[in-house]
Amino acid sequence: AGLAAVGAPKPPNLVLLLMDDMGWGDLGVYGEPSRETPNLDRMAAEGMLFPNFYSANPLCSPSRAALLTGRLPIRNGFYTTNGHARNAYTPQEIVGGIPAEERLLPELLKGAGYASKIVGKWHLGHRPQFHPLKRGFDEWFGSPNCHFGPYDNRARPNIPVYRDWEMVGRYYEEFPINLKTGEANLTQLYTQEALDFVQRQHAARRPFFLYWAIDATHAPVYASRPFLGTSRRGRYGDAVREVDDSVGKILSLLRDLRIAEDTFVFFTSDNGAALISAPKQGGSNGPFLCGKQTTFEGGMREPAIAWWPGRVPAGQVSHQLGSIMDLFTTSLSLAGLAPPSDRVIDGLDLLPAMLWGQLTDRPIFYYRGNTLMAVTLGQYKAHFWTWTNSWEEVRQGIDFCPGQNVSGVTTHTQEDHTELPLVFHLGRDPGERFPLSFASPEYLRALRRVTLAVRQHQETLVPGQPQLNVCNQAVMNWAPPGCEKLGKCLTPPESVPEKCSWP
Amino acid sequence: AGLAAVGAPKPPNLVLLLMDDMGWGDLGVYGEPSRETPNLDRMAAEGMLFPNFYSANPLCSPSRAALLTGRLPIRNGFYTTNGHARNAYTPQEIVGGIPAEERLLPELLKGAGYASKIVGKWHLGHRPQFHPLKRGFDEWFGSPNCHFGPYDNRARPNIPVYRDWEMVGRYYEEFPINLKTGEANLTQLYTQEALDFVQRQHAARRPFFLYWAIDATHAPVYASRPFLGTSRRGRYGDAVREVDDSVGKILSLLRDLRIAEDTFVFFTSDNGAALISAPKQGGSNGPFLCGKQTTFEGGMREPAIAWWPGRVPAGQVSHQLGSIMDLFTTSLSLAGLAPPSDRVIDGLDLLPAMLWGQLTDRPIFYYRGNTLMAVTLGQYKAHFWTWTNSWEEVRQGIDFCPGQNVSGVTTHTQEDHTELPLVFHLGRDPGERFPLSFASPEYLRALRRVTLAVRQHQETLVPGQPQLNVCNQAVMNWAPPGCEKLGKCLTPPESVPEKCSWP
Repeated sequence: AGLAAVGAPKPPNLVLLLMDDMGWGDLGVYGEPSRETPNLDRMAAEGMLFPNFYSANPLCSPSRAALLTGRLPIRNGFYTTNGHARNAYTPQEIVGGIPAEERLLPELLKGAGYASKIVGKWHLGHRPQFHPLKRGFDEWFGSPNCHFGPYDNRARPNIPVYRDWEMVGRYYEEFPINLKTGEANLTQLYTQEALDFVQRQHAARRPFFLYWAIDATHAPVYASRPFLGTSRRGRYGDAVREVDDSVGKILSLLRDLRIAEDTFVFFTSDNGAALISAPKQGGSNGPFLCGKQTTFEGGMREPAIAWWPGRVPAGQVSHQLGSIMDLFTTSLSLAGLAPPSDRVIDGLDLLPAMLWGQLTDRPIFYYRGNTLMAVTLGQYKAHFWTWTNSWEEVRQGIDFCPGQNVSGVTTHTQEDHTELPLVFHLGRDPGERFPLSFASPEYLRALRRVTLAVRQHQETLVPGQPQLNVCNQAVMNWAPPGCEKLGKCLTPPESVPEKCSWP
Repeated sequence: AGLAAVGAPKPPNLVLLLMDDMGWGDLGVYGEPSRETPNLDRMAAEGMLFPNFYSANPLCSPSRAALLTGRLPIRNGFYTTNGHARNAYTPQEIVGGIPAEERLLPELLKGAGYASKIVGKWHLGHRPQFHPLKRGFDEWFGSPNCHFGPYDNRARPNIPVYRDWEMVGRYYEEFPINLKTGEANLTQLYTQEALDFVQRQHAARRPFFLYWAIDATHAPVYASRPFLGTSRRGRYGDAVREVDDSVGKILSLLRDLRIAEDTFVFFTSDNGAALISAPKQGGSNGPFLCGKQTTFEGGMREPAIAWWPGRVPAGQVSHQLGSIMDLFTTSLSLAGLAPPSDRVIDGLDLLPAMLWGQLTDRPIFYYRGNTLMAVTLGQYKAHFWTWTNSWEEVRQGIDFCPGQNVSGVTTHTQEDHTELPLVFHLGRDPGERFPLSFASPEYLRALRRVTLAVRQHQETLVPGQPQLNVCNQAVMNWAPPGCEKLGKCLTPPESVPEKCSWP
């Protein structure tokens, strides 16, 4: 699009607010009945809503890798081949991480003089070579993995929290999370880090990129004391309310510093609400089918709001099919930079959609592992494979689609529809409940277009080296840099690399 | 509340916009992904949203009877005892109608000098004694029954359209509905009737009550040519877009006449979206379970917006548990009238909620026939009976909850839970997917409150004479008043009263 077209005198600051396991249906503006997100709703009223915005994967790590590389996980290596259609992420024992060959957004933004900070969850590998400060970020406050725990520090170490290069403590230790009461002060810390960073860069007159990747809405959900018990939705709602309040504070600071018109802010989430944790620890995917881990809409359609007062028109809705990978390309575009030309970039520049209401026809691909499960093109979504989770898990009470059961669609075995895909019209049927009749002309028309798009995609696809295949207890966070200063180094067990088990 | 408290110099005009089978999830402001209701969304932004607003029944006629009487169908007679927990309405062969003893809103509003008009579907009995102009309305343009058809005028007459006392034609004849293309000009006619009425009353300086009960979103859904094919949601969406456009025109006229601040407008629907007609002819209940005909949230929770510029504060959300019956009491309150004191009125005056944000604790009762299926009190909903529809219907492909199946909840047999009700927390779990554990203290606390409310309700309950038990082919719309002028009188068959069959 080019900044000149925007009329912006200089590249804007970039703020990406990335939620963790928050669902499409969790915001008032997306129809959450309790309507407890006044700040996000105001952000939408002042900005542009993208109701058809997708993550690049129904799970956290691959989705984040896609955001920062602008590339599908199948290209950037954030997938596994250990089984057919398996989701994978970066638990502590993962050996892999974001490959050195990938060009990350903060690395590229250096070319335009941006200062970059990640606050919260990195999740692209926790071994030293994957450290975010080695990948373009100038500052980090947060953790490499999910805040699962507490662990015993014998079989499994607690997850470290880093400030920049070194750990400054661990979850459940220096950074307490009370699983019983749900109390944790983390969102407050992460908010303060964001506010400080913005103020410092503003004072230094340096353009900045803030990647605010907080994890309060990921189970075990938590909130600080002033928010606990305040939601009509229980503890999950408490966490949402605190996040909403924090977003309000960040936007207020931008206004107070009079840099709102110089700052592009985008709000979204890494994947759909984790219905396995619902209703107490998981959110809502609104009218959509299933949740996190699945390639139904509930797994990958995300709340999304663009905010840039004076540039992105207020109170608008864009029906552009958007992707979390577009944040890479759009951010580069805003910084006046071109995306890398030596590789396939899946992200689209959203500026034409945001500034001129332009719609670009593009497919959305839904992968599990290296299996293309489904694709959306225009209003049509075709499923080549259907699977929620295994019968074995279902028998244990694990259910990715509680209360939802579409016969032949929400299958508990991997069903191959590649010969005759299941096709849904997402406008009439956003809940994926009524497959088009195979005999209808509409089906045949949709299939023809979809088949072409998939063929083009697959013919040029060069899968990256899969990073999420190998696990090793010895690589866990036993002795992160800085542990010696804190006296918190633990002794790793013997190194035994093995295939990760992805159920 | 009293008008004095509002500061209004005179009783406001009253406009009730009642949709037909429109679901909670059909408006952009309630999270519909295609966001095609800019006028309703603006109405919400300028008014007050009630996300917890309920119809009085999951079916059309009883819900409308409740609106106009302020009383539950079990009291006003709009129910059947022909079977256990049976929904019933007023098809052409129904013998009953709104009882003479009931006091209807337009009858009462006469006491404050209001002119009243009903536009659209009456549905409270089509025999002469039930004519809306005998029940307080001064004008009528619309039909007594649903726009089903076309019929052959031999076994079954087409539904008449009335202007005031006399029929002026029939659906599919003088008032065409093209079932193939979906084209019908009816919403345009109904809109023009509304605009004319408002203008005339304004010119006459007479306070008015407009009951705009259009039926475009009831299957078979229709729209006029300019709207056909314009929605991302198919024909149902076309109908919604036209309705939204019409609401915009009505509100615009109020502004243009400078009587917006003298007019209280309320928008809602008669019952949940008809998922049996989805996705092509039915709408969306958003995150809620099942649809029309059921006593799950999808059957009875309705979109609801109050609009009264300068009086009802703009951009607010009220968590008051509201009911369509409240429109009766609130309207009377606005007109400076007291509700009848010689009978139980279930409707609440919503003015305290709208003007001062006051919340009144009150139960919402969910009936099918004369069976109390469920009750909501605060955030808790208790189901005493669960039933969607029969296995027999399911085997024929009729499904009130397509794609939804909550084990032990969406049952296809009538399950008696009166001893140990299923309890849901609607804040955490608006989709009624996770019953509280019977052993939990939360369950016991909720049950205690609910039991008390139900006991109070049932102890004082005097059921009305059931009106929906008897059917007779001879009472159909063979020869409505005015038919002779049009040469459209048909000969009724022999009178054979029989028990209506309600599956």
